[in-house]
Amino acid sequence: MFDILNAIKKNKVGIFMENEKYDLGNYSPEILKRLKSLDINSGDQIQISSDDFSLEGYLLPRIELGDKSKIILKLSNGYNIGIEYSSSLKIAKTGKSFTLAQFPTLTLSPKESLPQISLLATGGTIASRVDYLTGGVEMALSPEEIYHSLPELLDEISFFEVKQLYQIGSEEIWYKQWVELAQNIEKTLNNGSHGVVILHGTDCMHFTSAALSFMLPQISGPIAMAGGQRSSDRGSFDGALNLISASRIAANFDGAVVGVTMHSNSSDEACHFIRGTRVRKMHSSRRDAFKAINEDPLVKIHSSGKIDIINNNYPKLQFDETISNTSFEPDIALIKVFPGSDPSLLDWYIDKGIKGVIFEGTGLGHLPTLPPLGEESRSWLPKVERAHEEEIFMGMTSQCIYGRVHPYVYKSLRLNLLAGMTYLEDMLAETAYVKLGSALGQFSNVSEVQKHMLTNIAGEISHSRMDSDFKEVSS
Amino acid sequence: MFDILNAIKKNKVGIFMENEKYDLGNYSPEILKRLKSLDINSGDQIQISSDDFSLEGYLLPRIELGDKSKIILKLSNGYNIGIEYSSSLKIAKTGKSFTLAQFPTLTLSPKESLPQISLLATGGTIASRVDYLTGGVEMALSPEEIYHSLPELLDEISFFEVKQLYQIGSEEIWYKQWVELAQNIEKTLNNGSHGVVILHGTDCMHFTSAALSFMLPQISGPIAMAGGQRSSDRGSFDGALNLISASRIAANFDGAVVGVTMHSNSSDEACHFIRGTRVRKMHSSRRDAFKAINEDPLVKIHSSGKIDIINNNYPKLQFDETISNTSFEPDIALIKVFPGSDPSLLDWYIDKGIKGVIFEGTGLGHLPTLPPLGEESRSWLPKVERAHEEEIFMGMTSQCIYGRVHPYVYKSLRLNLLAGMTYLEDMLAETAYVKLGSALGQFSNVSEVQKHMLTNIAGEISHSRMDSDFKEVSS
Repeated sequence: MFDILNAIKKNKVGIFMENEKYDLGNYSPEILKRLKSLDINSGDQIQISSDDFSLEGYLLPRIELGDKSKIILKLSNGYNIGIEYSSSLKIAKTGKSFTLAQFPTLTLSPKESLPQISLLATGGTIASRVDYLTGGVEMALSPEEIYHSLPELLDEISFFEVKQLYQIGSEEIWYKQWVELAQNIEKTLNNGSHGVVILHGTDCMHFTSAALSFMLPQISGPIAMAGGQRSSDRGSFDGALNLISASRIAANFDGAVVGVTMHSNSSDEACHFIRGTRVRKMHSSRRDAFKAINEDPLVKIHSSGKIDIINNNYPKLQFDETISNTSFEPDIALIKVFPGSDPSLLDWYIDKGIKGVIFEGTGLGHLPTLPPLGEESRSWLPKVERAHEEEIFMGMTSQCIYGRVHPYVYKSLRLNLLAGMTYLEDMLAETAYVKLGSALGQFSNVSEVQKHMLTNIAGEISHSRMDSDFKEVSS
Repeated sequence: MFDILNAIKKNKVGIFMENEKYDLGNYSPEILKRLKSLDINSGDQIQISSDDFSLEGYLLPRIELGDKSKIILKLSNGYNIGIEYSSSLKIAKTGKSFTLAQFPTLTLSPKESLPQISLLATGGTIASRVDYLTGGVEMALSPEEIYHSLPELLDEISFFEVKQLYQIGSEEIWYKQWVELAQNIEKTLNNGSHGVVILHGTDCMHFTSAALSFMLPQISGPIAMAGGQRSSDRGSFDGALNLISASRIAANFDGAVVGVTMHSNSSDEACHFIRGTRVRKMHSSRRDAFKAINEDPLVKIHSSGKIDIINNNYPKLQFDETISNTSFEPDIALIKVFPGSDPSLLDWYIDKGIKGVIFEGTGLGHLPTLPPLGEESRSWLPKVERAHEEEIFMGMTSQCIYGRVHPYVYKSLRLNLLAGMTYLEDMLAETAYVKLGSALGQFSNVSEVQKHMLTNIAGEISHSRMDSDFKEVSS
């Protein structure tokens, strides 16, 4: 098997390309005119400043999908930034051009004998950069670009379909996109694809992975999400291995699982495939930011291509047909409680018409029924009682993140239990929030919702104590 | 040095005691009459049921401070529960009495030659049980009880003052209690105590440790908080070692630091002393639930008494006088953003008159400036702009917990920055929330608040990248 990462590094793809078509790209006529008058081209080092700020970096070309009125700069730290153009901005050329790397030319020749997988892209660091074009933030990802960027992967895998659904950050993705993603997955799997890779921004990837887990109750192939924590032009770029590993999961894994494929540690040795309902982004920048919570990752995918099953507790592939269930109720809330948290927040949500709420309680699932000493008006109990009376589902999780909630420990918990609180065992707050939208989309009766929330649908809940699962990786 | 833990286990204190005084204790006349009519005494196995629930356990005596109208049962899982008494409850004796252990008799004889430390108790699992009385939830803690429960500790340490400030759960503690705690610490240190141990419930201990860190800018001795994750009558009780280790920190540590002293792993071998602004409860039930975030714990305290400095980056003791600064503005908010989070929440808080807000953003500190596709009304940007115009301080942290925020990465972050968002580096969201209350208590001008928030006061913030600090303990 080829060493894909080394091949990529050797080819120096992923930096800049010499390609006339992308010279300045698709900037607005006003910007193009200004840049040309200053003799500025893509790759030139320039400074843009106003009264408020001053930024220096390399000018990137503007690709078609992007906002034509924003100038994209690559800063010295490797990050890209988009600056809304205005004629009042000062722009100056400050240095020579960045050296552009050569784009390798490949002929597309997918092999019918290889596993056929589909690639759906939504945006984020990985989707904008893994194609190794210019590093621009809002870039399109074409099938050809994917092929170009990971040529050796084509000895293992063939792409059944490659589709750019969005080009947005993960925090701009909500339930309408979850529904479209689920529908696209259903379609491509039922059309003959063996598995699906989804490129996604990392910040909220765990919300989307949970949503797809619930919206696709029956799948004929594995669904592997992947993102990038670092941009492709930094030495620490992680997106290539994540995409390669996700492709290997989509092609070869025997589980009917939606999961996230990201670095298992800070080196480029391996990725973990973590169940979509048990994954959480636990670090803002590290490549191994994604952790499996309250269970082990399912799979370790080594860069060599070797696949180790770590945790065999997953449903095996058994269906020929994929069936989606995309009903979703968006009027729900996620409330974290803490010292001084204002209980009237729940009134506000109820007045706005929410149908359900997930609490991030403290410790074992505390929502203070007693107000802080001397603050008798700040009691959650009457608010919880009102929600209960108005048949609003209330689920309890823990802001500790690791561990499970337990309703019987303290008297205050007991009171909550009596007032209609459902204790969601070892379910992540984020997963519970997404599951609640799915549950309320399907059921209107509170007791049906409660039953569904306490039923394991996609590995998101277990009913036994598993303290030993508090495993984390030492760096 | 004595093996304190073994001595405690050998003496079997901490289970039940034979002591007439505590036979049924201080229950209400109505409960006493009912129990007597059923020939039920402390330690008897009983069942209490109503239409809603049925619970079985051992009856515990009611101590003086407790709510006389609640019956306390010890459940088979070792936890205690308080059940509000009503004459409609069914009560039945279901089994023989629990075997009661012998209470060891000790004479109080503090030695003047030993370090004098103070003990302030606020409640929680540890304060209610470390005295090894009956295991009742709302129990008093007297100096004699402390001495009784940890006799061997008296060879190392002498208690200057022992004071029961509250008997409440940690989630009932807010800023008025933080102020009183800070004032009590100031007083006892200035009166001659060398250091202070604070017994506290664990759920919100990290909020209190942060608050005391900011409210005590100059201290003459170390402040060590300790709690218990498990009750004293379970084999896995952790409170004794935590209290012993905290006492050793208060007596011997050379740092002017407020910190949390809890188990370093799931065995009874050692505790960590973690800086109060860098600590977070990361597991709902494990004994090693408390983790140092974005830095190493300062000290490892072995059960043998050996103290290892792990992280020497702390201010050394240098002042003879302790000075508190307890100004605090409670009208602040902590807002977590996520897919579907409702930006009008910020309007609601502003209308209520908050003076500042801490965001738990996604990833590197995203607060979506673009609404989800197709949901144009759900944009945070106009709300943030309003808060900025009304001079409400806005601070950004990351819900990833580990890592730091970074304002320059993406265009949406850049927009936030321009609209008055202050990026709080690697500060924990909970710490930032508490620090903001302290900052607004001292300064009214937004730029002064901003400057204070970005200034390191108690080790809560660092301005360099420290990715390698993503260390966690493998179980």
